[in-house]
Amino acid sequence: MTNLTRLTLLAAVSTSLFAPPIPSPLSLMPWPKELTAQPGFVAITGNFSVSITGPGAGDERVQKAMPRLAARLARQTGIPIPAVSPVSDKDAVLVIVVGEAGHSGAQKLGDNERYSLTAADNHIKLDADTPLGTLRGIETLLQLVRQTPNAPGFSIPNVVIHDEPRFAWRGLSFDVSRHFMPVDVVKRTLDGLAAVKLNVLHWHLSDDEGFRVESMKYPKLQELGSDGMYYTQAEIRDVLAYAANRGIRVVPEFDMPGHSTSWLAAYPELGSGQGPFHVIHEHQEEPTSVMDPTQEWTYEFLDRFIEEMAELFPDEYFHVGGDEVSPKKWLGSPRIRAFMQEHKMANAAALQAYFSKRVLDIVTKHGKHMVGWDEILNPDLPKTTVIHSWRGQQSLWSAAKEGYQGILSAGYYLDLSYPASYHYSIDPMRAPALPTGGPVTKNGPVPGTPADLTAEQSKLILGGEAATWEELASVEMMDARLWPRLAAIAERLWSPESTTDVASMYRRLDATSKWLEWLGMNHRSNLSLMRQRLAGPYPQQPLDVLASLVEPTKGYSRHAQLYGIFSPLNRLSFSIPYESDVARNFSNSVDEYLAAPKDRRNGADLRSRMADWAKAAKDVRPMLENQSVLTENLPVADGVAKLCQAGQDALTYLEGNNSAPVGWKQKASTSIEPVVNKRIGDLLIQIASGVQKLVEAVPGK
Amino acid sequence: MTNLTRLTLLAAVSTSLFAPPIPSPLSLMPWPKELTAQPGFVAITGNFSVSITGPGAGDERVQKAMPRLAARLARQTGIPIPAVSPVSDKDAVLVIVVGEAGHSGAQKLGDNERYSLTAADNHIKLDADTPLGTLRGIETLLQLVRQTPNAPGFSIPNVVIHDEPRFAWRGLSFDVSRHFMPVDVVKRTLDGLAAVKLNVLHWHLSDDEGFRVESMKYPKLQELGSDGMYYTQAEIRDVLAYAANRGIRVVPEFDMPGHSTSWLAAYPELGSGQGPFHVIHEHQEEPTSVMDPTQEWTYEFLDRFIEEMAELFPDEYFHVGGDEVSPKKWLGSPRIRAFMQEHKMANAAALQAYFSKRVLDIVTKHGKHMVGWDEILNPDLPKTTVIHSWRGQQSLWSAAKEGYQGILSAGYYLDLSYPASYHYSIDPMRAPALPTGGPVTKNGPVPGTPADLTAEQSKLILGGEAATWEELASVEMMDARLWPRLAAIAERLWSPESTTDVASMYRRLDATSKWLEWLGMNHRSNLSLMRQRLAGPYPQQPLDVLASLVEPTKGYSRHAQLYGIFSPLNRLSFSIPYESDVARNFSNSVDEYLAAPKDRRNGADLRSRMADWAKAAKDVRPMLENQSVLTENLPVADGVAKLCQAGQDALTYLEGNNSAPVGWKQKASTSIEPVVNKRIGDLLIQIASGVQKLVEAVPGK
Repeated sequence: MTNLTRLTLLAAVSTSLFAPPIPSPLSLMPWPKELTAQPGFVAITGNFSVSITGPGAGDERVQKAMPRLAARLARQTGIPIPAVSPVSDKDAVLVIVVGEAGHSGAQKLGDNERYSLTAADNHIKLDADTPLGTLRGIETLLQLVRQTPNAPGFSIPNVVIHDEPRFAWRGLSFDVSRHFMPVDVVKRTLDGLAAVKLNVLHWHLSDDEGFRVESMKYPKLQELGSDGMYYTQAEIRDVLAYAANRGIRVVPEFDMPGHSTSWLAAYPELGSGQGPFHVIHEHQEEPTSVMDPTQEWTYEFLDRFIEEMAELFPDEYFHVGGDEVSPKKWLGSPRIRAFMQEHKMANAAALQAYFSKRVLDIVTKHGKHMVGWDEILNPDLPKTTVIHSWRGQQSLWSAAKEGYQGILSAGYYLDLSYPASYHYSIDPMRAPALPTGGPVTKNGPVPGTPADLTAEQSKLILGGEAATWEELASVEMMDARLWPRLAAIAERLWSPESTTDVASMYRRLDATSKWLEWLGMNHRSNLSLMRQRLAGPYPQQPLDVLASLVEPTKGYSRHAQLYGIFSPLNRLSFSIPYESDVARNFSNSVDEYLAAPKDRRNGADLRSRMADWAKAAKDVRPMLENQSVLTENLPVADGVAKLCQAGQDALTYLEGNNSAPVGWKQKASTSIEPVVNKRIGDLLIQIASGVQKLVEAVPGK
Repeated sequence: MTNLTRLTLLAAVSTSLFAPPIPSPLSLMPWPKELTAQPGFVAITGNFSVSITGPGAGDERVQKAMPRLAARLARQTGIPIPAVSPVSDKDAVLVIVVGEAGHSGAQKLGDNERYSLTAADNHIKLDADTPLGTLRGIETLLQLVRQTPNAPGFSIPNVVIHDEPRFAWRGLSFDVSRHFMPVDVVKRTLDGLAAVKLNVLHWHLSDDEGFRVESMKYPKLQELGSDGMYYTQAEIRDVLAYAANRGIRVVPEFDMPGHSTSWLAAYPELGSGQGPFHVIHEHQEEPTSVMDPTQEWTYEFLDRFIEEMAELFPDEYFHVGGDEVSPKKWLGSPRIRAFMQEHKMANAAALQAYFSKRVLDIVTKHGKHMVGWDEILNPDLPKTTVIHSWRGQQSLWSAAKEGYQGILSAGYYLDLSYPASYHYSIDPMRAPALPTGGPVTKNGPVPGTPADLTAEQSKLILGGEAATWEELASVEMMDARLWPRLAAIAERLWSPESTTDVASMYRRLDATSKWLEWLGMNHRSNLSLMRQRLAGPYPQQPLDVLASLVEPTKGYSRHAQLYGIFSPLNRLSFSIPYESDVARNFSNSVDEYLAAPKDRRNGADLRSRMADWAKAAKDVRPMLENQSVLTENLPVADGVAKLCQAGQDALTYLEGNNSAPVGWKQKASTSIEPVVNKRIGDLLIQIASGVQKLVEAVPGK
């Protein structure tokens, strides 16, 4: 199937504003490399059965996937599907062929993930080169399940899919230091990663705020370097097995020499400068403490520590951080300055390069490839080092030109409250086409400049990782932090480069967001419970409406004000999705209306939405006035009311029955100006830009 | 505090229709014996701390309750509250005094549960005679947490509570045979039971459909008597410890000699009549197989089996079922008839009495008191037997008159889809005042005739158990089956007999339903996910509205049609609450309106509700037409549309601007007649009776 056909198909299933929503069975995410839809379907019933053949049939990952498949089919259909016991090819509804057994040992970067899935003639065939491909294909199969049109029950549509990933390294960098995330959160996150075909959990296990792994050799790390919340080695092994069964590599990160205060709280002799050091609990304007790279003791410690962790974590890659090292802490020490002079190091960067090189030797000695954030890039490092770019594509490409492999996280930070469309526009092989977090048109970004890399160099770009830093996330809103936006990044890293239709992405993201809850994510239900807590005895509905119109402020704007390990994260801004679907749809509808203002249905629809919002802004007031944690949001309700008034007035004038009185436009603009792209507390009213467009479109002044 | 004061207080917090909802901190359920509210509050902050003193301070149940208390406070406030480490009395926010240590061994029927809770002067004091009382008081404390009026944050209001239960046996009879319920469901159910101060899990572990416990002595019981889903003994012990820590006794039931097909599938030699026997998977009109009480082998088997289970389950009570034994299976066997003749048994009841007596000897030998359903009642049984009434208060009282202890389940069957108000009206000490499942007025039931028992006999009424039979419940809707209605039964069994205000009960039940989700119950969120599965790609909101207006049909009306262990339980009737709050509120509002029809606000409010429902009934149609599992519900949407039309017309005529045309009333009545108290599929449109009242109130014919 050509890309053109595929795009036509996408266009055919995209919904227009007033057509009844068209049920589309094709809400796959990530979108596969090749897909041909065909008429007919394969019914999913209580008699669902599976045969598994091929050299890889006995692979533990495939075998263990079978009861999960049965349970998830049952959940997606409400049909009790008994744990599937293998039957013969002839009798099976699902025939799985696994081309070869997995190699011995842990999953490796670049392991084959290809699969083909065919549904036809009342049978489904899943054919993969490897057990890993089988796992990916099962996820696609599950995403295809829907109610059968015109016949009560569930089925998957007839289809032929050939699929494989664009990038080999598709991950999530997951900070569990700032706020600890218990094992059950990690496990359900792994379920989610597998479901959208991500294959790396990059586990950020230590930082200034907490050391989160049990070390047998240096137990003070977890005892003094955490608030008692860390993973035991037994728990780590349990998580690693869980991940391996789902085809996910786990790359541990122990950040050094910066972001290491929790180590120093336990072992102050590792630090540059005078201790004692204390685990950090609040937002810091000052740079935090760093390790002392001039003492041999530091390397002896790291050697023993990395030996222990290299054994615990089977993956070939080992992340040593290396970001945001403050020169100040080094240059402030006469002893360290003397060391630098002695070794002819011109600056702190040279000292960090020295440190990186020493750590690399240790990591290599223990059988691992080193990964580090892009600050570690230095010509002295051997080419086996992987550069992890958080500062932009340029550093990734520079590294590739020098022969280093690289992965991209710049543009994929889920903690900064940017919309899915922004992350979706970020391509490891192209310069960003958009300002950070900026708006993306419905039809997708103007492509940025492609990387000026040779074919050989291009191969060094391994992929990317979404990243989330947990200063402002606790267990309650963790899932909402990740989902559904992470699925859009997963598609960017799996699907062909040409898969860039933003409207299609959002349609499928909405479906994805729904079924992720069946899989155990709570990104929607738990936010609702948080709002219920805020609403107390009041009916929750008007608060839900208000919450649907706003977003948290972007970037790092909230950190200084709100962050602390022990700070309550219970206000409205934490109980809402990071992206307002309602506001985005409204803005798109305003564009459609302004493009064809004579279509009265468009206008009536916009008016009705604003009327509902205005009603909610009114109904919510007693709650905001009396529920003390919510009271700070009264200006948000006021802002929404004003916007709805201005928007409804604008519609009246745009409909042309009356022209706007002289001065109305100025007055309306002034009235809404304080809430258009302006923070109210730590919220933005995201319907403001749509209203602003309406007001500005009114003829006259 | 006198009852009169308490009732006045209740009245003061009950909400009227148009007043803004009044936040009341007093949503306790069950309502305590004595409560005095006082001005002021004790703030709950991250500095929450506890001291525990008194002879019982070291009790494991109290100690283990502390981290749970911290975690639940955190969940209820969004404030990170570190696991509380005991501090001195002076520094503690919460001072717990435990009067005495628990006796050694398992919790016993009648163990003291009294506690007092005082919040004043920025401190909370929880004083209990025993560890069990401490657990009950902690639940009350958690129910008091709410946002502080006029000061951002959370707190509990100043209050003095003295509390203890009315009945000593307050349980849930929980069938896990018809559909197996995994350990995590049992555990969260135990959390819920403890939260509403129930203290018995009566675990119905075997029935015709499945034998759910691992027996080491007779492993075929679980191997051949189940579909592979049963609890291992390790799992049982884990659940028992979980229950014990929450102050809940676990009484196992192994139903015999009837309801025992799963035993016979494993050991056919136990059966009356010819085997082989097969575990039952579908609804049966014919009586199921029974054990053969004439063979010594049966008692040898039961002796060894009960010995094993008596050791596994530490509770003093052991439930042997005894219900619904078909005489047919015995009388059809020449051998059994001969045995009866030989032993001069006039009928099957005499044979069952013989069986009960033999089983009682075994149960007694293994150190347990026997409990059985009311069919076992027979003058030959010793007075240590506990009679469990499922057939009505009369059998309970008859037993008490003969000197037997008893517990009531008649009227508390949660599987029959009756409203909370019905269960709430059932009192173990009074004859039912209402027809089964019948309507209850807003002001509560007319009290039925009190039991004609002496004081001594009254003491034999130990309490009651809600009961749920899982023919028509799977894991997905299990929580909705139990909650929130179970909390109303819990109040009936804990609170003073005079606590009968239905409006207050419903107000507090609504609050209870909300916080139960914070505790992990999913009775609301999971039904929503089930409706999402039905809605597929369509917006779910109109389906949610439609779902809020209907209830499943009552009693056993759905069983024959729908039950099967492998039947899909995925249609709309399974994805809705068992009771429609919306319909009940509507009916109450109609009553208020008809009592004061000139209050135009009442009329406008009713009209607006019906307009919203009519809109949903229209908007939901494309979904019902295209989502095949939902299509059967088109007549429900039609019915709602008709009702809303008739109700809105009636309002117009009642408002008196126009009088109804001649014949309108007849026509409207005829139009809605097919949906008033009539099943549509397996649903009832519960707003119908409210509309009917409006139509009938219109003057003229």
